[in-house]
Amino acid sequence: VTEPLVGILGGMGPAATAAFYAKLVARTPATRDQDHLRVAIWADPTVPDRVAALLDGSTDPYPLLLAGTRHLQSLGATVAAMPCHTAHAYLPRLVSDTGMPFIDMVAETARVLRQRDLRHVALLATRGMLGSGIYQERLRDFDIVVPDERGQRSVDRAIAAVKQGELAEGGRQLSAALPDVPLTVLACTELPLAAAHLSSPPGELLDPTDLLADALIAACR
Amino acid sequence: VTEPLVGILGGMGPAATAAFYAKLVARTPATRDQDHLRVAIWADPTVPDRVAALLDGSTDPYPLLLAGTRHLQSLGATVAAMPCHTAHAYLPRLVSDTGMPFIDMVAETARVLRQRDLRHVALLATRGMLGSGIYQERLRDFDIVVPDERGQRSVDRAIAAVKQGELAEGGRQLSAALPDVPLTVLACTELPLAAAHLSSPPGELLDPTDLLADALIAACR
Repeated sequence: VTEPLVGILGGMGPAATAAFYAKLVARTPATRDQDHLRVAIWADPTVPDRVAALLDGSTDPYPLLLAGTRHLQSLGATVAAMPCHTAHAYLPRLVSDTGMPFIDMVAETARVLRQRDLRHVALLATRGMLGSGIYQERLRDFDIVVPDERGQRSVDRAIAAVKQGELAEGGRQLSAALPDVPLTVLACTELPLAAAHLSSPPGELLDPTDLLADALIAACR
Repeated sequence: VTEPLVGILGGMGPAATAAFYAKLVARTPATRDQDHLRVAIWADPTVPDRVAALLDGSTDPYPLLLAGTRHLQSLGATVAAMPCHTAHAYLPRLVSDTGMPFIDMVAETARVLRQRDLRHVALLATRGMLGSGIYQERLRDFDIVVPDERGQRSVDRAIAAVKQGELAEGGRQLSAALPDVPLTVLACTELPLAAAHLSSPPGELLDPTDLLADALIAACR
C-alpha cells in the first residue's frame, strides 16, 4: 500500500499557497504530528502571469506548470491540488499530459453549490478567470452575478494588494466589490486573505480553498 | 547562473511549517508574485518523535530526515532550512551525509543574540532540545534561564496544544511558563504560534524562525 502524499502546485501567489497549506493542516483531524498528511509543495512564483496569458496570450505559464507537476510526480505525489483558480484553465491539459490525479477546485465548488438551494451566485475572480468562462460553464445552472467595471477594478486591486502583503488594503478593496447577493464565491485564492480583514460582509462568502482542502483530506483517507 | 531554490524540510510540526512558509513570504520584499522566492517544501509529519529520540533513543527520526533532504536535493534546492529546533540535533549529520547547505537556526539565533547587550536569556524548548545541550552550548556566553519542572510541564502542554490545533490553549499554557526575564527565546517552532495568543508577555519574545526566514532571504539575494 502506497502511503498518500499530497502534492501542492503552488506559488500562485505564494501567500495564498502558505494559507492553503495552513488550512489543510488546520482542517485535518489530528492530535499529534504523525496524524497529519505527508505534503510536498512546489511553489514557483515565477510562473508567468496567468491573467495576461488568458486575456491576450502575451505570457505562457504552461511550461512551468508542467515542470512543477513533474517535480511533484518525481516525489511520488498520489493526489495533487493547485490553489490558484486562474491556473485551472490549464488543468485539463496538465492532467492529460502528466496523468497526475488533480482535484479540480472549480468542479468541487460547483458540486457543493449544487447541494444548496440558491439561484443567484456572485463570482469574484480575476479578469482572466472570468474571461476563460470556466466557472460560468460549471455553474451554468445558476444566475451568475459578476462585478461591473468599477467593481472589477476593486477586485483587481484587492488581489494585487494581497500579493504585495497589504492584507488590510485588500480587505478595503474587496469590501467595495462585494455585491448584495446571499452568496459570493471568492474565486481567486488571494481574496479569502483579504476577506479575513472584512468587518461585516453583506452575505455569505464561499472560499473554494476550504472545499479543496477537505477534498484532499477525504482523498487521502 | 542557477536560480535559487529554497528547500524547506518541514512537517515537524506541520502547522509550524505552514506558519514558517507564510513568514518567509511576508518578509520577502515583493510587489508581485514573480518577486518571490522559489520554494520546495517536503513536509513529512510522520518523522518519528524527535524528543523521545533524544531523551531515551526509543525512536529514530534520522532516516526520514535524510530521505526528505534527498528529496529537496533531487528538486535542486540551493539552500535549505528546517523549521524545527529539536531536529537541529541531527543537522550536523544531515549536512555531512548530504552536503546540503542548511541554514542553522540555532547558530543564527546565537549570532543575533550576541549583538545584543544581554546577560540573561530564557530558553523555552522541548525536553529533548534542552537535554541535547545544543542551545546551551551555542549560548554559553549568556546566563541561560530554563523553566523549573512545573514551568516545563506548561511548555510541553503549550507545544502539544498547538500540534492539536488548540492555539488559544497553547497561549494560556505558554503564559504560565514565561519567566520574568527581559528576553525569552521561543526555541520550539510551535511556541510562536501559541505566543500570538498572549495578551501581554512579561518581556521580549525572540522568535528564531524570524531569523531563519531572513537568513534564507539573504542567502538567495
